[in-house]
Amino acid sequence: MSPYVKFIPSLHHVNPPELYEPPPYYSHTVTTSSSCRFVATAGQVGCDENKVFPEHLDGQILLALENLARALEAAGATIADVYKLVYYVVDYDHSNRAHAKHIERFMDGHRPATTFVPVPALASPGIKFEIEAYAAVRQEPMQKVDVVVVGAGLSGLKAAWEVQKAGLSCMVVEARGRVGGRTYSVDPLEEGRKVDLGGAWINDTNQSEIYKLAQTLGHELVVQKTDGDVIYDDFGGNLVRTGYGLTPDVLAEANAKEMINLINEETEKACHELDIRDPTSGAAKELDKMTLLEWAKTKTSSKSALAVVQLWTRAMMGIEPSEVSALFFLNYMKSGGGPSRMRSDLKHGGQHLRFLEGSQSVSLGLADLLHANTVMLNSPVLRISQSSDGVLVSTARGDLLGKHVIVSVQTILYNSITFDPPLPSSKLELAKHGVQSFSFKHVILYSEPWWRKAGLSGAFMSFNGPISTSRDTSNDQNGQYSLTCFANGDLGRRLSKYPKEERTQAILDHIKRVFGPYVNVPEPLLVIQRSWSKDLWSRVCTVPVSPPGIMTLHEHALRTAHGKVHFVGTETAYEWKGYMDGAVSSGARGAKEVIEALNQAKL
Amino acid sequence: MSPYVKFIPSLHHVNPPELYEPPPYYSHTVTTSSSCRFVATAGQVGCDENKVFPEHLDGQILLALENLARALEAAGATIADVYKLVYYVVDYDHSNRAHAKHIERFMDGHRPATTFVPVPALASPGIKFEIEAYAAVRQEPMQKVDVVVVGAGLSGLKAAWEVQKAGLSCMVVEARGRVGGRTYSVDPLEEGRKVDLGGAWINDTNQSEIYKLAQTLGHELVVQKTDGDVIYDDFGGNLVRTGYGLTPDVLAEANAKEMINLINEETEKACHELDIRDPTSGAAKELDKMTLLEWAKTKTSSKSALAVVQLWTRAMMGIEPSEVSALFFLNYMKSGGGPSRMRSDLKHGGQHLRFLEGSQSVSLGLADLLHANTVMLNSPVLRISQSSDGVLVSTARGDLLGKHVIVSVQTILYNSITFDPPLPSSKLELAKHGVQSFSFKHVILYSEPWWRKAGLSGAFMSFNGPISTSRDTSNDQNGQYSLTCFANGDLGRRLSKYPKEERTQAILDHIKRVFGPYVNVPEPLLVIQRSWSKDLWSRVCTVPVSPPGIMTLHEHALRTAHGKVHFVGTETAYEWKGYMDGAVSSGARGAKEVIEALNQAKL
Repeated sequence: MSPYVKFIPSLHHVNPPELYEPPPYYSHTVTTSSSCRFVATAGQVGCDENKVFPEHLDGQILLALENLARALEAAGATIADVYKLVYYVVDYDHSNRAHAKHIERFMDGHRPATTFVPVPALASPGIKFEIEAYAAVRQEPMQKVDVVVVGAGLSGLKAAWEVQKAGLSCMVVEARGRVGGRTYSVDPLEEGRKVDLGGAWINDTNQSEIYKLAQTLGHELVVQKTDGDVIYDDFGGNLVRTGYGLTPDVLAEANAKEMINLINEETEKACHELDIRDPTSGAAKELDKMTLLEWAKTKTSSKSALAVVQLWTRAMMGIEPSEVSALFFLNYMKSGGGPSRMRSDLKHGGQHLRFLEGSQSVSLGLADLLHANTVMLNSPVLRISQSSDGVLVSTARGDLLGKHVIVSVQTILYNSITFDPPLPSSKLELAKHGVQSFSFKHVILYSEPWWRKAGLSGAFMSFNGPISTSRDTSNDQNGQYSLTCFANGDLGRRLSKYPKEERTQAILDHIKRVFGPYVNVPEPLLVIQRSWSKDLWSRVCTVPVSPPGIMTLHEHALRTAHGKVHFVGTETAYEWKGYMDGAVSSGARGAKEVIEALNQAKL
Repeated sequence: MSPYVKFIPSLHHVNPPELYEPPPYYSHTVTTSSSCRFVATAGQVGCDENKVFPEHLDGQILLALENLARALEAAGATIADVYKLVYYVVDYDHSNRAHAKHIERFMDGHRPATTFVPVPALASPGIKFEIEAYAAVRQEPMQKVDVVVVGAGLSGLKAAWEVQKAGLSCMVVEARGRVGGRTYSVDPLEEGRKVDLGGAWINDTNQSEIYKLAQTLGHELVVQKTDGDVIYDDFGGNLVRTGYGLTPDVLAEANAKEMINLINEETEKACHELDIRDPTSGAAKELDKMTLLEWAKTKTSSKSALAVVQLWTRAMMGIEPSEVSALFFLNYMKSGGGPSRMRSDLKHGGQHLRFLEGSQSVSLGLADLLHANTVMLNSPVLRISQSSDGVLVSTARGDLLGKHVIVSVQTILYNSITFDPPLPSSKLELAKHGVQSFSFKHVILYSEPWWRKAGLSGAFMSFNGPISTSRDTSNDQNGQYSLTCFANGDLGRRLSKYPKEERTQAILDHIKRVFGPYVNVPEPLLVIQRSWSKDLWSRVCTVPVSPPGIMTLHEHALRTAHGKVHFVGTETAYEWKGYMDGAVSSGARGAKEVIEALNQAKL
């Protein structure tokens, strides 16, 4: 019994026998299902997100089709829902029907009604191809349940599971065509070697929520390797090799080590004065009046120490120290037991264990624990309206009426849903002021763990970029050997301005520059780039970050329910914010709220 | 509590972060609400109603957008409902994106998915721009009420108010985006100086229905100025100045004064022989066998007297004396107490008082007296079907089921609604034979009432045109100084063939020609043109006019109910037809019919 709702197709294709047989990527006639939501896209052209157009027509067609797929996904439509395609080609050459093969591949067996229009020009010089789609998304009959969960990431799935275990009926609606949210594991070579593009690490001691779940599901865990040396890519490109977890004795700056140790100690101390259950109480408010950079500068003016602080915010949040409230950052670290524990790869540390089959296996496993027909995929939520009838959740694939709703999307995405009545202002302020971070994860697959030959751990830290930090993310057991490199914060923002090939090259060049002096660096099997910041349904990789002043005013609203709508997600966790453990515990908290409220209502 | 139904938007716009940021007038993706009515327009080109295309691209774009707005409005869609726009430009020049600013202004913050297609040519030479829209109009869940009122003009609103006061439930559906119908007051300079583009005048003695309402609402009234002289623009452009209400002693034609006085008396006499409650009885039938012109010619052959008759039909009905049944016209004048009273601006006359805040303030005030969520705007009615369940009123924004329905649109518009069962033949004949009048009202705003300096009233009458009559429509109290000029009947029809700028110039030239010899005529602040004949939801300014023969056969059907569908509107009034007072009394009559029928049904 599958937990996933099986949708009846939105379309019916007809090819009348009196008309000529169309090629396999279109039909003469398409009709929609009886009750549909309609989706239209703007004409999509073949440029990347920086508005750069490839010279060649084929390149433009491929990019335009990618963009079309994204535009459709944004409204919960898939190519299977496209009933009409119109596309335009400049300077069309009858002898070169370049578009046909690309469109056939893109349509993947689906056959919309299609019109092809040669044109003398398009909106800007250089644009050679444009394509627009009209789609229809069949609407499921309205379902009434006790609880609707919005979002099938870890927090949402955990909440749904708890709700169903309590004997309540529950549906989960998910914008993506898969469960897992930011747990997303792929097998790019299709050889059973999963790599994680999102959250990857857990531990088995103080991350009890996720660890319990891993045990329930019986998933195999891999210990993060910490043997081998770490390389510091110091100012000026100077390389310094040191033992795991140690600060090098000598760096470019004279008293660097002392200053790095000092900022480590000061941060640890500041964290331990905070109360994660009441983060804005007392003196904490002072910390919310300044950025982390300002705070760090009250402790040290050391360039190296400040660069280390920068490494932290980049790696952990995808932002710069000047963008985040000191309180927000320190409270975040405190949620994982303080900086040394949160950043550690050792036992009790934040990065101690990984899943052999990737972290998404937990989400997939959790979904399998749900009742049949619980999860509606490709169903982004457009509107949540509360009335005396209940809470109406309007999704791209139909409406659901719940007694309570649990929203498990990040605050920064609240604005993509129309709430009626509107969210209270504090929640909206949290959503509005969440800093758009930039997390650019690169997983580089190799045929062997070549760095280990030279006694290296694969980890390095760079004050120069484009990579700020790296880790060995191999799973030796199934022959998956990889380095995962983070080009985050301003480094990622800068890198993202380049075309994809140049970005990849810059990453590989950096790896070569850092490891090259110690060991021969082979060519990779594959480089996978993942920018969560550009991900429609995530926008940020760990948590949206608050600048100074926001927590003091609005943090209190983070977990409060809005009528019968409840809010979960890793950013709402008290412990291990931004981690899978925080997601799971927040889901449990949301389920508890709803179960209690419904039990109360029964009395 | 607003009387207006607040609609959930039909559309949801999405701009995926991986795609480039589109300009503010379009979105990459738009999805419709689950339950929608769909609207498509033909490609709209940039010509005026005479099919004249401006030379310049910008001019064509502006006209095409105006036409598009009209095409959408005709189906109850607004630009907020447009989910897709496709537009075509001939000979597109990449360096001149003229369309962008126009479309941005037109879309007014709404962002459909858009495709722009440069093309080598369009359907005819000279066409440079074409635009088509796809819109979706969200359907409200069906509501069941005691009474549905179609049309939120004065008669419909009055009916609804009476129905609600009787304790019955009632909804009002209105095609326009505003209430008021032909009471329409604008503040073109946005300085609190309202001018009336539709009905303007009432009195406080024999127009008791509208006056009572004005008192209930506490609206301030302005007495129509009648001091100062009137100018006759006689044949050949000869100007004659005379006192208010007087016929000049000398006109171009020798015995003009006597003949004008004669036709006045004959008309008065003929009117007083009619019974407005039984207008086709007895000898009256004879009057329905001829046109007003034919009847007038039986009284006089004076060119001046016939020109005066022509002034009447033009000013009062927007038609020529040859187009209207003598009976129809005389009965119409009798409904206002006879010609001298109906045409008078003095106490007891038809044009004695105006509303300081414009006549629409009565409709707006009346709407505010209704219960919350009573009025559905932008909801033209497509179909009215009667069955044993009740009367189903299908509007562009959803269906309503009423026990009774009150239709407050003009007979000439009955054909725009599908009635099931069809209307009886007499009602259809009234609708079919209603003469398409032409009322072209111009309000010319000035910074001061310059005509008064020369002892002039601002009123003139012209045998030449393009203006047939004018009035001072200033509201001194709030510094609004204006002349309202009517270019009606054939004068208006001729004028309407010219481009807008030429029309305005012709009007201003005429004013200069008439007043210039007496006083310096300054440039106006603004000229507002309003052709009610081109108005989708009115078609005529006062009432549709019957040619000979129609009243005798079909007048009896004017007010009869069709099953549970009742008919109101100023043309159905016995008294003050074509006036606001008639509208209000007809609404009261319709409400009474329905209340009695429902009370009967309860017994």
